[in-house]
Amino acid sequence: MQKLYTLKEIADFLKSEFRGDANCSITSVAPLDKAQTEQITFLERAKFRPFLKTTKASAVIISEKDASRYDGNIIIVKNPYAAYAKITELFVTPPKGSTAQIGDNCTIPESAILGAGVVIGHNVTIGENSIIGPNCTINDNSTLGKNCRLYANVNIYQDVIIGDRAIIHSGAVIGSDGFGMANEDGRWIKIHQLGSVKIGNDVEIGANTCIDRGALEDTIIGDGVKLDNLIQVAHNVQIGDHTVIAGCTGIAGSAKIGKHCMIGGAANINGHINICDKTIISGTSSVARPIDEADVYTTGFTAIKHRDWMKIVSKIYQLGEISDRIQKLEETVNETT
Amino acid sequence: MQKLYTLKEIADFLKSEFRGDANCSITSVAPLDKAQTEQITFLERAKFRPFLKTTKASAVIISEKDASRYDGNIIIVKNPYAAYAKITELFVTPPKGSTAQIGDNCTIPESAILGAGVVIGHNVTIGENSIIGPNCTINDNSTLGKNCRLYANVNIYQDVIIGDRAIIHSGAVIGSDGFGMANEDGRWIKIHQLGSVKIGNDVEIGANTCIDRGALEDTIIGDGVKLDNLIQVAHNVQIGDHTVIAGCTGIAGSAKIGKHCMIGGAANINGHINICDKTIISGTSSVARPIDEADVYTTGFTAIKHRDWMKIVSKIYQLGEISDRIQKLEETVNETT
Amino acid sequence: MQKLYTLKEIADFLKSEFRGDANCSITSVAPLDKAQTEQITFLERAKFRPFLKTTKASAVIISEKDASRYDGNIIIVKNPYAAYAKITELFVTPPKGSTAQIGDNCTIPESAILGAGVVIGHNVTIGENSIIGPNCTINDNSTLGKNCRLYANVNIYQDVIIGDRAIIHSGAVIGSDGFGMANEDGRWIKIHQLGSVKIGNDVEIGANTCIDRGALEDTIIGDGVKLDNLIQVAHNVQIGDHTVIAGCTGIAGSAKIGKHCMIGGAANINGHINICDKTIISGTSSVARPIDEADVYTTGFTAIKHRDWMKIVSKIYQLGEISDRIQKLEETVNETT
Repeated sequence: MQKLYTLKEIADFLKSEFRGDANCSITSVAPLDKAQTEQITFLERAKFRPFLKTTKASAVIISEKDASRYDGNIIIVKNPYAAYAKITELFVTPPKGSTAQIGDNCTIPESAILGAGVVIGHNVTIGENSIIGPNCTINDNSTLGKNCRLYANVNIYQDVIIGDRAIIHSGAVIGSDGFGMANEDGRWIKIHQLGSVKIGNDVEIGANTCIDRGALEDTIIGDGVKLDNLIQVAHNVQIGDHTVIAGCTGIAGSAKIGKHCMIGGAANINGHINICDKTIISGTSSVARPIDEADVYTTGFTAIKHRDWMKIVSKIYQLGEISDRIQKLEETVNETT
Repeated sequence: MQKLYTLKEIADFLKSEFRGDANCSITSVAPLDKAQTEQITFLERAKFRPFLKTTKASAVIISEKDASRYDGNIIIVKNPYAAYAKITELFVTPPKGSTAQIGDNCTIPESAILGAGVVIGHNVTIGENSIIGPNCTINDNSTLGKNCRLYANVNIYQDVIIGDRAIIHSGAVIGSDGFGMANEDGRWIKIHQLGSVKIGNDVEIGANTCIDRGALEDTIIGDGVKLDNLIQVAHNVQIGDHTVIAGCTGIAGSAKIGKHCMIGGAANINGHINICDKTIISGTSSVARPIDEADVYTTGFTAIKHRDWMKIVSKIYQLGEISDRIQKLEETVNETT
Repeated sequence: MQKLYTLKEIADFLKSEFRGDANCSITSVAPLDKAQTEQITFLERAKFRPFLKTTKASAVIISEKDASRYDGNIIIVKNPYAAYAKITELFVTPPKGSTAQIGDNCTIPESAILGAGVVIGHNVTIGENSIIGPNCTINDNSTLGKNCRLYANVNIYQDVIIGDRAIIHSGAVIGSDGFGMANEDGRWIKIHQLGSVKIGNDVEIGANTCIDRGALEDTIIGDGVKLDNLIQVAHNVQIGDHTVIAGCTGIAGSAKIGKHCMIGGAANINGHINICDKTIISGTSSVARPIDEADVYTTGFTAIKHRDWMKIVSKIYQLGEISDRIQKLEETVNETT
């Protein structure tokens, strides 16, 4: 169901001034560099200003300070990011509450087996021979491929697309809201998550693993990806084909992980970084910077006796001082010799 | 339903001696420094002895060694902490097993929508316009505010209070038992968790996040708090208003986090420490000590090539030796120059 | 239901040559060092070659290179580990999809209480006085002891054995597939997990904690073990009696943890290592090496101000250089003095 607003309607919703074509049609929201006709976008930070010259958006939410930098349709606000958060409410279609066990317009073949207590929303499609374990829920407009196996109590939100032969373990949650919000005067405004989750073929997802839906675009899991238990996949993450990730790993928003990677357990990947194909990350390692050369990457220590570790820690916190003492020694020795 | 025991009854239950008023009424358990009339408390460690002078408790569980330090009603035991664990069984009211879909004496307005498979205990109150997703469970005596949205399969234990406009994602568990136990002769005795969870207004709780109920007092989540997925909030934690916490973070028991804090993903906060308002904790950082100055706090490394990291690690484990060599060099140089 | 194949049938399934008794009976799969008559095994790595001399297996899957090292029945393949992965499919019995609320041949005593929405598979046994919370699922052939309490929405897979007086919190998943797979030409072949999970008496399992079933043997949790929330217990882990483990901890595959251990929150234990009885692991510590002496083991740091930490980090990454400078100083000073 497409949304349609005029520029004036959105400006009125934001209680803000606009400049340009009041009747300009807006049907969705997109980032500045990707927005197309009929999309509204926003200029959040100075570093994105260059995209003002090339954006194809029909309108830009912008601060007063930056308003003169753009000739097209604008809505002028104090905090463009908070304004973006607010207007996501206009474009989101959360599933309506429902009391039905199985919603309307679903495609569920005879060959599929739905366990007791399964609840299915509207317009859901399930592929041939798929087995849906007891107490699973699949919300509106989601699609599950053929020959899938969902164990008991898998929860799939609305608009999610999952390929063939998926194995999904109990307690996994797919399509929950990404953790996005904008701060306005100390309070957090929810950024409704307008993207969804797309999962390829032959994917296995472990127990209690969470995959969040994207903010504006989709979170994407490639073919043949294997995820262990208790993994967090944040919004807009992309995981390339045939990558495997062990349990308790956290992947922050918009991280892009290549194909054929192997990520050990309890690793953490920062948001907004790329990790190239065939990278191996050791268990418990944190990755805070992009990786563009396939190799084995590690950080972390192994536990030793507490009192020994405490001594080492005290030295580490003195490394600045140790470094100074070496420099002083070098100067003294150089003068002397 | 209030419990009522006499001092003698509790002493008999513990198979222990008591001293004082056998008929003294005891209705609940509280920590030494907070106990009031009709409450029983316990002296666990020497450092709490000063509170013996000021406690308003009606009775104290105490070791033989400390018995002479207190003039009031006492029960004398070998292991006061284990005795405390045992008597929590007298004061806990776990929900009875039930086969009902919706229990007795619930307040569920017409405007609320209960999805298929929702199970509700006794004496539950749900606010106007709240949407309870399919297969959610809400146990006895819990209260949910108005305009809340629970996605599929949220599990709320007994006696939990949640404010208005809460958004709670699938698999979240609220009110599970805190991880409390006392050791007696190598075995662990469960400390029944007598507190509950109180959650303010405008709170969002992510998928598969867990919030444990308090041991004696409540776990408290302030207004406007936003919690991402797979977060562990242990018993008696307090999180101040408008604090946001990213996914995979663990917060240990009785930690007190201020208002307007921002905690990155996969951080860990020790138990029993305070973190002041407006503190920012970087992702993957551990916080083992209290923070009383608002700033950005960090620890942790980023993964580098495995062989390079292994070299650095070997140096780190040699830091004691490196420090010794510097000191020796300084002595030699000082003698020489 | 026992499976029975001939050597030739398995070789044909693998489209591989065999040598030896075509009609040799194979009923299950086992590791090289533990396999008995009627079991098939595989030689994955050179370091296991010595076991070829002592194995009691009825057949070995082996590479062409190693084929001459073994005189008995063999199936010759390019990648024995991948071949092992493939044949697990022959021996696994995943629960059939079912639409029943309660399956056939279950033993559920009058004294047990099953909450609304509980779904139970075939051949399940539940002990006297156990309370199964709403929306729990227990799959085929599993056994739960007496006086157990499962809170809402606990999910137990097939063939799991749980002792008496278990307390299991919402969202816990017991018996999900271990994370096992073999790589063949860049794609991952699932190793069906043929073991299960055995849990002793008096065990408590926290909310959203996951315990995976074993690959060939069982994952084992001893008596009196207490597990907090959001813990990952991977396949073939063994946890000794009366060990307690705090929340967010990850235990990788085949780790063996002793009795009476205490493991702090957010710790991580590597796979395939032993930790001896009475070991204490501090919270947030990683254990990458075996521990054979009971003591307190620690690694990790506490967050300090970001700019101070960044200075220390830069020094740490320079430790190689710092070490070199000290050595040079020592040489210079030794020459001089």
